[in-house]
Amino acid sequence: MNLAVIGGDGIGPEVVAEGLKVLDAVTGPGVVTTTHYDLGASRWQRTGEVLPDSVLTELATADAILLGAVGAAPGATDIPSGLLERGLLLKLRFAFDHAVNLRPSKLYPGSVTPLSPEVVAKGEIDFVVVREGTEGLYCGNGGVVRAGTPAEIANEVSVNTAYGVERVVRDAFERATRRRNKVTLVHKHNVLVNAGGLWKRVFAEVAAEYPGVTTDYLHVDAATIFLVTDPARFDVIVTDNLFGDILTDLAAAVTGGIGLAASGNINPTGAFPSMFEPIHGSAPDIAGKQIADPTATISSVALLLDHLGMHDEAARVEQAVLADLSARTGHRPTAAVGDAIAALV
Amino acid sequence: MNLAVIGGDGIGPEVVAEGLKVLDAVTGPGVVTTTHYDLGASRWQRTGEVLPDSVLTELATADAILLGAVGAAPGATDIPSGLLERGLLLKLRFAFDHAVNLRPSKLYPGSVTPLSPEVVAKGEIDFVVVREGTEGLYCGNGGVVRAGTPAEIANEVSVNTAYGVERVVRDAFERATRRRNKVTLVHKHNVLVNAGGLWKRVFAEVAAEYPGVTTDYLHVDAATIFLVTDPARFDVIVTDNLFGDILTDLAAAVTGGIGLAASGNINPTGAFPSMFEPIHGSAPDIAGKQIADPTATISSVALLLDHLGMHDEAARVEQAVLADLSARTGHRPTAAVGDAIAALV
Ligand SMILES: CC(C)[C@H](C(=O)O)[C@@H](O)C(=O)O
Ligand SMILES: CC(C)[C@H](C(=O)O)[C@@H](O)C(=O)O
Repeated sequence: MNLAVIGGDGIGPEVVAEGLKVLDAVTGPGVVTTTHYDLGASRWQRTGEVLPDSVLTELATADAILLGAVGAAPGATDIPSGLLERGLLLKLRFAFDHAVNLRPSKLYPGSVTPLSPEVVAKGEIDFVVVREGTEGLYCGNGGVVRAGTPAEIANEVSVNTAYGVERVVRDAFERATRRRNKVTLVHKHNVLVNAGGLWKRVFAEVAAEYPGVTTDYLHVDAATIFLVTDPARFDVIVTDNLFGDILTDLAAAVTGGIGLAASGNINPTGAFPSMFEPIHGSAPDIAGKQIADPTATISSVALLLDHLGMHDEAARVEQAVLADLSARTGHRPTAAVGDAIAALV
Repeated sequence: MNLAVIGGDGIGPEVVAEGLKVLDAVTGPGVVTTTHYDLGASRWQRTGEVLPDSVLTELATADAILLGAVGAAPGATDIPSGLLERGLLLKLRFAFDHAVNLRPSKLYPGSVTPLSPEVVAKGEIDFVVVREGTEGLYCGNGGVVRAGTPAEIANEVSVNTAYGVERVVRDAFERATRRRNKVTLVHKHNVLVNAGGLWKRVFAEVAAEYPGVTTDYLHVDAATIFLVTDPARFDVIVTDNLFGDILTDLAAAVTGGIGLAASGNINPTGAFPSMFEPIHGSAPDIAGKQIADPTATISSVALLLDHLGMHDEAARVEQAVLADLSARTGHRPTAAVGDAIAALV
């Protein structure tokens, strides 16, 4: 396996090192060849480059990409807001057509949830969000007029296509057939009538092809309520790019915190490499201290293995994470968590 | 006081009746004159009218508006999606320039929160969201091309102006000076760089005028995490229309549920009547059964009184709600809750 690795900024390199440790342990010697790419805030600060075309071309030849996190320290006022997100992270998602942004949420035994025992007792919390990854408000379609004046107008355009919606909705239904056969569409079609109408129509059309799958619809505001009052009701959630961003952070909080939440940015056709990353950010405040939790990155490695057809290895990583989580008491250094999970795979 | 009343659909009329009961009790006989307006799904179904211009003109002369909820039963497929929201509820917010959508969240003793005792123990949960009410994705600016085809494109435009942002940010800072002197801006400026840049700039400019107020910034996804892991950190949150919609439902869930969450749609200049409403919807499934909780509407009446300068009456309603909530055991009929609170004011 030819793996491209982008450690990135802050805690990114630390957690990625543990992900690679576990990947090596589960695949055995010589199976994974890694190429490291120096990208992110520090590269930009040194060279003024965010993502050179030559690097993008090279990344395109990888079997998959493992990414840590990207984002400068809050003090770094020299970096324009969004430069690294738009120029690197989202650039990769768009360039490699990562339509399916896959984010599983599962409350493992032993994980600390902010929810009450009453809510947890309602049932097993185990769902996956299929977040659309290449459309919506993330297109970067917008602009500013009269910038910096009291008469400034700033627009952002959410672009949604039947093509783009259909492929993630189909992915969600496919996943549901391999899970508990339920898909919930989350949108806000009573206000966003144009985009919402499209999502609803396509959802209904695809649903008709899956008579065995139960469907549900929630407005995004209501969905946040159920995520904290009855998360066990969810199996597969399908939603747009921005709603998915919001719901998956909330879902991560509910299922043990952002330190555990994995994600896959999946190219559905295989024409480009898919990219796997923890959903947390670069957390510059705790960088370099070996206190970041690498579990989200290690779980992202499981998604990566699964995506590349190494289902057995993926399952072993998942089991090892589960076993380690169940046995946790107190904080361990970042590398110790990686060591422990690597020893269990 | 010349009060326009829109009961609306579903549980709307039931909960509004209790709000009026408490309003009468606290103001005494003859102070409030109500005019009821028949608007909502059932009017549309009977007459095909959503909000006739003549009604809008009449509503404009009221001192304030009390609204229950608007929205048809899910089975009512004859009502186009968004017709009532866009044509009535949002039409009123826009026509009467309800820039400040005020949504307080407070966890009262006795209320049931889905959060764990550990999270609740972190501190008092008592914050207010100042949601922008007349801009953003709620403008209704968007459209569809090639509708209904596999090549459909649906756009939604978020429109943000310095004028619109400045007035709600200022309102938030003003409120903070009467509370715990902290304002948190919530946005997603690393992705929505145009709108986010505007919000950040205006926020910084207004903040400079309030040196006694502490400021904070959170991306919307991170804000949802803190709302469930450490809600006590918030005092005043200021955010855009859609983010505010999402965060306030989540905030309502965290502080005892949607049955308790009040809101005010406030016209900052007084040129138009402000409108007060529970943030919950019309809940058609439980309509007419006298099981809906009218507390959110009654708390909205407190916001209404406060807005009209009747601060003493507002405080008495708030105290009565608090006393009633603290004493609650089990469910009571809708009217019984209204009776109990009316007896306490
Ligand atoms: C860093 C940011 C651009 C990104 C997003 O909004 O998608 C992150 O929040 C995520 O969820 O992966
Ligand atoms: C009904 C809907 C249009 C409305 C909104 O989105 O603002 C509601 O959710 C609210 O929060 O008042």
